[in-house]
Amino acid sequence: ISRSSTMPSLYSTNMRLKFPVLAISLEILTIILFGVFVTYDKIDAHHGPQNSSHSNEEPDFSALYPVFQDVHVMIFIGFGFLMTFLKRYSFSSVGLNMLLAAFGLQWGMLMQGLWHMHHGKIQVNIYSMINADFSTATVLISFGAVLGKTSPVQLLIMTILEITIFAMNEHLVVEILQASDVGASMVIHAFGAYFGLAVARMLYRPGLSNGHENDGSVYHSDLFAMIGTIFLWMFWPSFNSAIAESPQEQYTAVVNTYLSLAACVLSAYAISSLVEKKGKLDMVHIQNATLAGGVAVGTCADMAIGPYGAMLIGLTAGIISTVGFKFLTPVFSSKLGIQDTCGVHNLHGMPGILGGIAGIIAVALGAKSSFSSVQMLRFNSQVMKTRSKTSLFGNVVMQVAALASSVGIAIVGGAVTGLIMKLPFLGQPPDQNCFDDAVYWEVPEEEEEHEENMTHGDHSKNKAEP
Amino acid sequence: ISRSSTMPSLYSTNMRLKFPVLAISLEILTIILFGVFVTYDKIDAHHGPQNSSHSNEEPDFSALYPVFQDVHVMIFIGFGFLMTFLKRYSFSSVGLNMLLAAFGLQWGMLMQGLWHMHHGKIQVNIYSMINADFSTATVLISFGAVLGKTSPVQLLIMTILEITIFAMNEHLVVEILQASDVGASMVIHAFGAYFGLAVARMLYRPGLSNGHENDGSVYHSDLFAMIGTIFLWMFWPSFNSAIAESPQEQYTAVVNTYLSLAACVLSAYAISSLVEKKGKLDMVHIQNATLAGGVAVGTCADMAIGPYGAMLIGLTAGIISTVGFKFLTPVFSSKLGIQDTCGVHNLHGMPGILGGIAGIIAVALGAKSSFSSVQMLRFNSQVMKTRSKTSLFGNVVMQVAALASSVGIAIVGGAVTGLIMKLPFLGQPPDQNCFDDAVYWEVPEEEEEHEENMTHGDHSKNKAEP
Amino acid sequence: ISRSSTMPSLYSTNMRLKFPVLAISLEILTIILFGVFVTYDKIDAHHGPQNSSHSNEEPDFSALYPVFQDVHVMIFIGFGFLMTFLKRYSFSSVGLNMLLAAFGLQWGMLMQGLWHMHHGKIQVNIYSMINADFSTATVLISFGAVLGKTSPVQLLIMTILEITIFAMNEHLVVEILQASDVGASMVIHAFGAYFGLAVARMLYRPGLSNGHENDGSVYHSDLFAMIGTIFLWMFWPSFNSAIAESPQEQYTAVVNTYLSLAACVLSAYAISSLVEKKGKLDMVHIQNATLAGGVAVGTCADMAIGPYGAMLIGLTAGIISTVGFKFLTPVFSSKLGIQDTCGVHNLHGMPGILGGIAGIIAVALGAKSSFSSVQMLRFNSQVMKTRSKTSLFGNVVMQVAALASSVGIAIVGGAVTGLIMKLPFLGQPPDQNCFDDAVYWEVPEEEEEHEENMTHGDHSKNKAEP
Repeated sequence: ISRSSTMPSLYSTNMRLKFPVLAISLEILTIILFGVFVTYDKIDAHHGPQNSSHSNEEPDFSALYPVFQDVHVMIFIGFGFLMTFLKRYSFSSVGLNMLLAAFGLQWGMLMQGLWHMHHGKIQVNIYSMINADFSTATVLISFGAVLGKTSPVQLLIMTILEITIFAMNEHLVVEILQASDVGASMVIHAFGAYFGLAVARMLYRPGLSNGHENDGSVYHSDLFAMIGTIFLWMFWPSFNSAIAESPQEQYTAVVNTYLSLAACVLSAYAISSLVEKKGKLDMVHIQNATLAGGVAVGTCADMAIGPYGAMLIGLTAGIISTVGFKFLTPVFSSKLGIQDTCGVHNLHGMPGILGGIAGIIAVALGAKSSFSSVQMLRFNSQVMKTRSKTSLFGNVVMQVAALASSVGIAIVGGAVTGLIMKLPFLGQPPDQNCFDDAVYWEVPEEEEEHEENMTHGDHSKNKAEP
Repeated sequence: ISRSSTMPSLYSTNMRLKFPVLAISLEILTIILFGVFVTYDKIDAHHGPQNSSHSNEEPDFSALYPVFQDVHVMIFIGFGFLMTFLKRYSFSSVGLNMLLAAFGLQWGMLMQGLWHMHHGKIQVNIYSMINADFSTATVLISFGAVLGKTSPVQLLIMTILEITIFAMNEHLVVEILQASDVGASMVIHAFGAYFGLAVARMLYRPGLSNGHENDGSVYHSDLFAMIGTIFLWMFWPSFNSAIAESPQEQYTAVVNTYLSLAACVLSAYAISSLVEKKGKLDMVHIQNATLAGGVAVGTCADMAIGPYGAMLIGLTAGIISTVGFKFLTPVFSSKLGIQDTCGVHNLHGMPGILGGIAGIIAVALGAKSSFSSVQMLRFNSQVMKTRSKTSLFGNVVMQVAALASSVGIAIVGGAVTGLIMKLPFLGQPPDQNCFDDAVYWEVPEEEEEHEENMTHGDHSKNKAEP
Repeated sequence: ISRSSTMPSLYSTNMRLKFPVLAISLEILTIILFGVFVTYDKIDAHHGPQNSSHSNEEPDFSALYPVFQDVHVMIFIGFGFLMTFLKRYSFSSVGLNMLLAAFGLQWGMLMQGLWHMHHGKIQVNIYSMINADFSTATVLISFGAVLGKTSPVQLLIMTILEITIFAMNEHLVVEILQASDVGASMVIHAFGAYFGLAVARMLYRPGLSNGHENDGSVYHSDLFAMIGTIFLWMFWPSFNSAIAESPQEQYTAVVNTYLSLAACVLSAYAISSLVEKKGKLDMVHIQNATLAGGVAVGTCADMAIGPYGAMLIGLTAGIISTVGFKFLTPVFSSKLGIQDTCGVHNLHGMPGILGGIAGIIAVALGAKSSFSSVQMLRFNSQVMKTRSKTSLFGNVVMQVAALASSVGIAIVGGAVTGLIMKLPFLGQPPDQNCFDDAVYWEVPEEEEEHEENMTHGDHSKNKAEP
């Protein structure tokens, strides 16, 4: 019994021509742009922390390379496996995650680099590799909101548009507003979440309002998801510290994130048990809400908020996130028409906003005063801003503007992107084939005894397919 | 069909109030203690190996951070997935592992830091993060002994008590006795194992003496466990070298551990095949005994024992460990009333003692003479010991005392902790619900064909539940 | 129902004596050789990039240790899990991978070290650990070609022979020919692939020419394989840069590999969809062809081929590899008698040759002119070659010779090794037990409902066993 089938003609889910042509064309276009714009950086043979003093001209490649690899693991293993929890959609989760991230990092390197050219060239260094990986994170967060309901073609288009818009908002926040957001609570997490939610709103499917039989996990798919969760959890200190300006700030970001995440685990477990009638733990909360502490401490991770401050942020994030999964997600689906498959609003949206607010408070309290104010200046910006860097009030305003900009641009950008993704020839799957790999993947036949059983039992895994 | 059920009233396994209240209270208490006692460290902007010469004042953050992350992976992925081998207890294995480790690292930072305060403050640096992770390892080893038979509430209490006692014993061994134990064969592995075995003895369940249908693996749960095994195996050189005093000792610990583990694999595979009637390999041995070489080389990892010496230790450890799994574990269960779910006695207990003995021999042979004698001095101890550091005999005596102290304190501490954990309101599961996630976790319904089958076959996965 | 059974007497698959005796004997022999030949290296306390200037005398341990660990993960998790895709052979894939790699790294350290002795001793340093891991990669590639059709005893013998021959060819290529092959497209990938294909040809099984019911995947085994794929994919930049000569070349190798792999993902996905009737993605392609970019960019990874050049290589490799899986592998099996279980010809063979050719072209175009010509000189070779290092034509000839040597020696060596492996007492499994762990492993009984079903359905998973 093959799981393939004829699709309704309304839905042109056969990808044979449109997907390969789009993917190859995009890659060739990207290679041409790289040929024109991208060059190697020069590595100083005498590089090293004490010589370069972490100046922006001389990133310390060998010290940051392990941090880059941690971020790389978060993007490809972390996000990829976190989404494998669905019983019949694990190939797509980890496989399309890889596709979008692999394309996204190339596109991100171009889009971010265009704002920071040297003599008309984009120089690849360890920071641009880290930032390229970062830019894909926004797409992978949004992917979580529409997981199971979109075609590879739709997702590639979302990747192009979202990363382009992300790079603009990041430039605005970091270079123009000069706001602090070292761990990217605002520019990545809140941005990616609200972008994805806006797309999901545009792609609302009334047919799924009563749920879908494949929109759930099985025992081992939940275990695969835990691989993603734990790698994200462990390496989040690298994510939040990767682009910190000085060794002191890098260290501070590591410690704050480590402690925030540890505290967050306790509150996520506690609330998960508390909100369930029989006091049992729910894998959805464990897989996701334990990570909210990493998101929420992001903006002020490199500031002197105190170890206990970081832990308070983590504790709060774990509570908010778990409560969101339990009570907000159903309401979003039923009242707002936002079907958020992975609950990215709870893991990235609200904790991202919490992070932005914590950043505003931390800046207002002077927690970042001892460090230089331009936390995220990773490129040699030729245009130096003249705004006084010592104005505390100005800094607070800029943090507020950064949060508003990230959320606002995300919602507008996501809505427009969602509209474009609705174009019918993009291969969106019909409702009954949602959350099912078999639409776009060769899926191995099950072991014999299962099929035998399926035949006997007069119901099959394939019944969602016409 | 939900796997939930009404529990016998004798066993109050409903965690809804007691678990959240305990978890949140502990976390808030911890945050308060962090607020009072814990501060950031200062990172020297001009840090680096050649400037700091690895002095204790200036740990080299960026050089040790990747090593810390390796240890972090061992704790959360390694221990967590190693224990997923049980067919119906994988959520608890990886999930409670995360909970205990996340709380334990906070508690460990406090308990270890209290012995090393500066002006009434505990400074967080890269060594204290590594040591905080280390302290959780003792708990996770003990968790293995009681896996499947304890509630989250019991386990949180064990975590508090064990780490508190661990920190005392470690202070005794390292600072008072000034014994060598760079890879912690004694203070972590032997300690954690005998502590756990003493707890298991106190929690002896006659009802499980004939085994339990869920106390076994399925094909894919054994594969998940291999993820844990291999990450532990690969990163063990980081574990054993993380707190070595000088670059030379760090390098030596890496090489010795790398070679000991490689040799151990060969002997574990060979003996696994030899002790089985048909010469087949047993996954229990492969998952565990291949790691014994890392445990056993721990104490003398940083000493000049020669590459072949490290390999001999690994070879021996692989043999002892596999033989233990095959012949000792059944005897422990039937004769001593010690039901050691994961066989921690074979992976951490005996190899830990072997490591202690190897350390005694190595010190007696002068293998550590070329290095400074205070291998584990990671903190700025104000009290400098006056004992002559050149006394070979004195060093040997101290190694013996360290081994005896670690095992003795573990057994007494574990017995007391086990007695406390027997308090009836702590939610221990009844015998028939042991090794079953469904007591404390929402477990997804199986796929339809399975349930259909369960109904037809007139027996269900749930039959252990009343 | 146990999956064990009586084997036909022709096939002596009972490993009880021969495997343990071989494994222990080899390990003891290895330990003796280590005792005679292998010593520690001296680590300069003042090591560091700026002092050592990456001279060959003073490898920078702490900077390269994270890179070594990345390679370690590729060898043990990457290769191990990549091969778990088979439905009933995952224990062997990950377990025998561990066995062969653990023995191979010891043997490789000896075989490679013998060519580079100092005063009759082999000094272990970070480069020799990286190279020891590298040498196991050749065996693990060849293992992929014969996966499911060989006994542990056969595989240990293959390990000894292949690594010995590999070390000779590597010495020839690197020291005598002084060819460039920093990422080892030729000396590891092409060598391992053609060695394995020659072995597979010698072990041709006509009985498998119509396929085998266990020669396929199930849903979750494909997911386990993706763990291997993604860790290989992520850490490949470390593999290709680990032994680069200078920081500049290390950086260049990282960037080129990162970009080549990203481009390769796009073309592998595109072609996978294009060659399938319904345009669906095939997990075999995703798991393997996405990595071809890392193989193909290996030889010239440290050269100034330009970011777009690396991407073009990756794009091409992804196409060639996917097309190979679809169209060449069936032909190899039916026409040439080469049954290549994992398709190593498509992942390592053709992309390895492509890498060799790309290296020839890059050298011809002068892409390596700005760097020193001895890319892979990792040991203190006492014999300095007198061949002019500025001769472009000479360099091109040497690259061609290196490729020819690697492929030629691999084929001859593999054929001889395959003949030796055919000796009947080595425990090769009969055709009907191929691709089945149960021949050499204790396999857990399936869960009750499955067995129940198997009985009802009158067919069992075990029917391949007589």
